[in-house]
Amino acid sequence: MFSGAVIYDSPTAAIARKAGEPLVIEEIEVAPPKASEVLIKILCTSLCHSDVTFWKMAAGPLSFFPRIFGHEAAGVVESVGENVEEVKAGDLVLPIFQSNCGECRDCKSKKSNACSKFPVRFYGGMPIDGSSRFTDMNGQILHHFFSVSSFSEYTVVDMSHVVKISLEIPVDKACLLSCGVTTGVGAACKFAQVEEGSTVAILGLGAVGLAVAEGARICRASRIIGVDLNPEKFEIGKQFGITDFINPTTCGEKSISQVIEEMTDGGADYCFECIGLASLMADAFNSSRQGGKTVVLGVEMHGSPLSISPYEILRGRTITGCLFGGLKPKSDISSFAQMYLDHELNLNGFITHELNFKDINRAFDLLLQGKSLRCIIWMDNIENGK
Amino acid sequence: MFSGAVIYDSPTAAIARKAGEPLVIEEIEVAPPKASEVLIKILCTSLCHSDVTFWKMAAGPLSFFPRIFGHEAAGVVESVGENVEEVKAGDLVLPIFQSNCGECRDCKSKKSNACSKFPVRFYGGMPIDGSSRFTDMNGQILHHFFSVSSFSEYTVVDMSHVVKISLEIPVDKACLLSCGVTTGVGAACKFAQVEEGSTVAILGLGAVGLAVAEGARICRASRIIGVDLNPEKFEIGKQFGITDFINPTTCGEKSISQVIEEMTDGGADYCFECIGLASLMADAFNSSRQGGKTVVLGVEMHGSPLSISPYEILRGRTITGCLFGGLKPKSDISSFAQMYLDHELNLNGFITHELNFKDINRAFDLLLQGKSLRCIIWMDNIENGK
Ligand SMILES: NC(=O)c1ccc[n+]([C@@H]2O[C@H](COP(=O)([O-])OP(=O)(O)OC[C@H]3O[C@@H](n4cnc5c(N)ncnc54)[C@H](O)[C@@H]3O)[C@@H](O)[C@H]2O)c1
Ligand SMILES: NC(=O)c1ccc[n+]([C@@H]2O[C@H](COP(=O)([O-])OP(=O)(O)OC[C@H]3O[C@@H](n4cnc5c(N)ncnc54)[C@H](O)[C@@H]3O)[C@@H](O)[C@H]2O)c1
Ligand SMILES: [Zn+2]
Ligand SMILES: [Zn+2]
Ligand SMILES: [Zn+2]
Ligand SMILES: [Zn+2]
Repeated sequence: MFSGAVIYDSPTAAIARKAGEPLVIEEIEVAPPKASEVLIKILCTSLCHSDVTFWKMAAGPLSFFPRIFGHEAAGVVESVGENVEEVKAGDLVLPIFQSNCGECRDCKSKKSNACSKFPVRFYGGMPIDGSSRFTDMNGQILHHFFSVSSFSEYTVVDMSHVVKISLEIPVDKACLLSCGVTTGVGAACKFAQVEEGSTVAILGLGAVGLAVAEGARICRASRIIGVDLNPEKFEIGKQFGITDFINPTTCGEKSISQVIEEMTDGGADYCFECIGLASLMADAFNSSRQGGKTVVLGVEMHGSPLSISPYEILRGRTITGCLFGGLKPKSDISSFAQMYLDHELNLNGFITHELNFKDINRAFDLLLQGKSLRCIIWMDNIENGK
Repeated sequence: MFSGAVIYDSPTAAIARKAGEPLVIEEIEVAPPKASEVLIKILCTSLCHSDVTFWKMAAGPLSFFPRIFGHEAAGVVESVGENVEEVKAGDLVLPIFQSNCGECRDCKSKKSNACSKFPVRFYGGMPIDGSSRFTDMNGQILHHFFSVSSFSEYTVVDMSHVVKISLEIPVDKACLLSCGVTTGVGAACKFAQVEEGSTVAILGLGAVGLAVAEGARICRASRIIGVDLNPEKFEIGKQFGITDFINPTTCGEKSISQVIEEMTDGGADYCFECIGLASLMADAFNSSRQGGKTVVLGVEMHGSPLSISPYEILRGRTITGCLFGGLKPKSDISSFAQMYLDHELNLNGFITHELNFKDINRAFDLLLQGKSLRCIIWMDNIENGK
């Protein structure tokens, strides 16, 4: 499978030329990795809602087109730039949107996983200098996404965004560990530190929200309330530990927070927003009890501000949030892989669909229609064997 | 001093008849304490900005007039209602706006000090039934404030709001422990748990903000940045550990958060809002570093919502808040009293003025003009000896 004889001439990528329009698969040129960078041959990738959020963004300072999206993936190192010693050609790696240089104040701190050498790039270039390694056949620059751009047969990633992973774990499961699932499980188990017996409310039951449920289940929460507009999410949610379901459209006059307050006698101990809407972040906050904690994981779709009542804060409520579940990619991912291998972490349940790369637009449809959690997109046709 | 022979006939109180207008000292009638209530003879009281905030509130659901303000005080138990066994006539006590029933889920939890039996009453009556124990000489009901109403020679307080305190500590110092100082020190040392070597930013250097500084100093913070419009607060702040001062009016083009970010290379580890303005709460949040924590202590003066950026939350920032420094009055106040007796906690520095009860309106002037931290108002004339 990790044959060295890859064809590096004229690789293809799925290019987003305009906001909200189907991606087009085209041949591109990929520049060789610069110092501290790695050229990765993507094996499989999957679609996360963060891709969708920025793909839909037609204007504003964070809107860049044409662009190569994708940031959940597993791949194999094709070649490395100068000064790269941590990985070598042939290694199985995950490119991760969250940098982990290991040397900055944040990487050395227990309190933050937000590497300050390379803050998460909502912009369109490489971490080191903002430039691109991609051009199309007309010589036009193609923007990067989240320092990963995995919707491409080959991509260049800064070493601080690359994590080597054991070959023991199947690549599609490994792929899930590179964003959504790790984010949710990490947020529950490590960032929020959900305690045994506590009540948890999760707004949004996509892969991220259900991964929070999986994390809360692992932490032995006594009750895990899921909130979603899509009633189908409850059935699938049960396998991740969801015990109660709220569909906001059937709450009548009551707000989500009123329903949760009644169900839990004062609010949930932990609330998680996994949708990306400021109004739902406020709902999550208002659903937490005194002394409770709300964790924002959703990336606000419209850049709207979050508005909450200072009086409710004074009752001892906390609101916080994190990227990548508050985890440090280089040190924390391996323990999640081990939990999977030890049958403690459900990864299989998140893979609801698989597709060939050429059909990548179908993955967008499935996610937007609420039919998929994660759709694994194989770069090499599925028929050719994984 | 704690003579039993108090004159309980026709006690006087300082009544706020209209929002923002000087208090008027009048004779009132105080009903006897009901079951679980205590009649307290106030020895001294002081003015906290929370009194001012509600005294200024001319309209809205939290505006109640005529009203007896005051919630920082020390007093002696005059008599007790049925079922009161915790204190007896002659005991030195602090009435506390924050209830601590000891039996509810919150009182039993380590995570919350927000007693759910009697949530903090922004309304005008007694905790048990919302009724008043005060009437004026025309039989008109006078509203309570924060379950305390200490601007009165006698007041009735529910036992869950009463803490017995050792006679070792002078009453004026004890008075400070009943709100502002305990709030600030508790917020830094217990609620936020400021660590040795950390950087702290404090917005608003009244008694609450300076008590946060005192707490941060006790916790061995390496740098304590104070922000206030009043430059005189820097001089007095030094004795509480303030190391740097920012006057927002002299920052030019820069915002408070930009200045703090530059001073601290990315933001302070802990930020405290001690003013009561939503815009300053947002400034405090934006002044915190990734993984940092902002604690709101100010009571929003205009009921405005707090608006923050969800993207900034995702960088691992936390915003939270508490009443009474997150402390449980019945168990935590005594340790602060002991710290004072052991010369570990500076209380003396907070007492900038002393007045007789008849001059209570002067205490409002001093606080509003930024001249006082805490002004001790003696019910018995100062000349008569304390
Ligand atoms: N913080 C991080 O590091 C991180 C990592 C990955 C994803 N994210 C973000 O997490 C969010 C979820 O990602 P995902 O991939 O699970 O998305 P998803 O599209 O699979 O799931 C979103 C879910 O929210 C539900 N939903 C939408 N609007 C709703 C509403 N108004 N009320 C209730 N439910 C509603 C949808 O039905 C869906 O089930 C996105 O905002 C994404 O950008 C953040
Ligand atoms: N959370 C609690 O339990 C609790 C307890 C006590 C007081 N409080 C609240 O804490 C706050 C402070 O109380 P205090 O008694 O110390 O008040 P104070 O009036 O003594 O101090 C407020 C300080 O803020 C400064 N200030 C005002 N506007 C400012 C601005 N725009 N920028 C910078 N500085 C500004 C003033 O100059 C003053 O020094 C109030 O909101 C009060 O209601 C809360
Ligand atoms: Zn993602
Ligand atoms: Zn780093
Ligand atoms: Zn107060
Ligand atoms: Zn209680």
